[in-house]
Amino acid sequence: MEACFHALISSLQPLKMLFNSVCIAGVGLIGGSFGLALRERGLAERVVGLARREETCQAALQMGAVDAATTNLAEAVRGAELILLAPPVGQIKPLCEQLAPLVHGGVIITDAGSTKAGVVRDGEALLGQKAMFVGGHPMAGSERTGVEQAKANLFEKAVWILTPTSDTPEVAVNRMVELIEALGAVPLIIDAALHDKLLAITSHLPHITAAALVHIFMQAQNETDFASQLIAGGWRDSTRVAAGSAEMWRDICLANAPAVARSVEDMIEQLEEFRDMLRDSDGARLNQWFESAAQVRNKHGYFPRS
Amino acid sequence: MEACFHALISSLQPLKMLFNSVCIAGVGLIGGSFGLALRERGLAERVVGLARREETCQAALQMGAVDAATTNLAEAVRGAELILLAPPVGQIKPLCEQLAPLVHGGVIITDAGSTKAGVVRDGEALLGQKAMFVGGHPMAGSERTGVEQAKANLFEKAVWILTPTSDTPEVAVNRMVELIEALGAVPLIIDAALHDKLLAITSHLPHITAAALVHIFMQAQNETDFASQLIAGGWRDSTRVAAGSAEMWRDICLANAPAVARSVEDMIEQLEEFRDMLRDSDGARLNQWFESAAQVRNKHGYFPRS
Repeated sequence: MEACFHALISSLQPLKMLFNSVCIAGVGLIGGSFGLALRERGLAERVVGLARREETCQAALQMGAVDAATTNLAEAVRGAELILLAPPVGQIKPLCEQLAPLVHGGVIITDAGSTKAGVVRDGEALLGQKAMFVGGHPMAGSERTGVEQAKANLFEKAVWILTPTSDTPEVAVNRMVELIEALGAVPLIIDAALHDKLLAITSHLPHITAAALVHIFMQAQNETDFASQLIAGGWRDSTRVAAGSAEMWRDICLANAPAVARSVEDMIEQLEEFRDMLRDSDGARLNQWFESAAQVRNKHGYFPRS
Repeated sequence: MEACFHALISSLQPLKMLFNSVCIAGVGLIGGSFGLALRERGLAERVVGLARREETCQAALQMGAVDAATTNLAEAVRGAELILLAPPVGQIKPLCEQLAPLVHGGVIITDAGSTKAGVVRDGEALLGQKAMFVGGHPMAGSERTGVEQAKANLFEKAVWILTPTSDTPEVAVNRMVELIEALGAVPLIIDAALHDKLLAITSHLPHITAAALVHIFMQAQNETDFASQLIAGGWRDSTRVAAGSAEMWRDICLANAPAVARSVEDMIEQLEEFRDMLRDSDGARLNQWFESAAQVRNKHGYFPRS
């Protein structure tokens, strides 16, 4: 009875509006999902989308990801209290340059870029005097892109990284944390350079090895028609991310070049070590190498293939 | 009405019994699934399982994967018309040596090993005079092993490779093709050496890169607790197969060492090429490299992560 009463009260509580007007610059998978989530959860009075193409504006409107959409930046950011920059990483800097003359002191500007050190440096340099810039990276996504793939629950339980610096106003960080929690995501504050180093290992390198596996398969395909008949579930899983946007991954690798280069060197080293164990027919070391990897992999979630 | 009548007749047709007695030497995931499928489809009068451990015999019986189970090889193969060798690849040769004095001319012996050239050489040398040996490889499996994971539908629509040589009796190949089709799988006849070369690329190399990705992650984990919080879906998919049995993968790599070593060299080459493109900040080449991989990957099945 008491539980019912609590549930009733809870369902009657008004949703907490966190921002009057939010601008989403770049309504793709991430930007579109952000709009859907804000609107579904009643976290913003008004959500305005900015897109490069008119068709994307229409698609975002039809999806219900935004209240209004425009291809005009000045129009999009007018009156915004929060601006999320969610274009491909390589376009964040030009966007900051265009934003600089348009924004004022009260606005919080954050981004959804997959690399952080360069973005934060550019964002603070170009916008830090005029607005409050907080670097961010929602760890959600897919090899599928575009607003058509957007989902209101994309960020639920996902880690949403923030990379404030000593120059970032505390109020901006606190409001971002409140927003991230209101979206059902998990805020994580981390240094931008450490973020980039770790993401090179947990995200960028797996993408590069996936694409490399596909290239090696392509060479085999050129030699024999049998190759594509001999694909199994393991290959499909290992190469899934290689289906992602080339433009996006080119930008990520260029933006995080030093850390990505180090992770590629680490991979080459691992493979050379493996080659030596194999050349020596060293069954004990091979077993240990596979076994320690299996143990760690098993600790980090079993995702059966579908 | 006519459709109903056909369906009725079809459901009343007796199942086609292909073998009187089948022995499955090694009732793990593959052997157990083979037994379940044979029994469910009524393809064998009697299925006998051989296991190293008594507990596995009991588990296979409880699963309904076999009619009888034993740890005694001579008992297991007595009266068998078909013997499937499904232990880890490294144990196939010793098993063939033990089988040699026990078998007679009429029996078909096949295997489920992930590598073929060495297995076929050993199988023909040790058993070819006394029985009909046909190398095989059902392309089904999982990083999970053991009879508990067995499923009656594991082979449905899966490619089941046969690698007969000029010495393989045609009748044995034909009966195997008939059996594979009766299991709902797709028979594919291919040269053993070509099989090994292609599987090194589509299966063994993805496993090695998955394990290498986990090792690089382990190094990062040793440096910072943040590492495991920054794992996303891409890493999980790319490393899924690394959770598999170390013993099985050690054996596969050793059994297919020359082809595996070549595929590892191919991978190192791809990564060196990538490193050079990155060092030169060559956006156009990077884009082309990612784009051609994405196009080919997209042609080979979209498996969304679960």
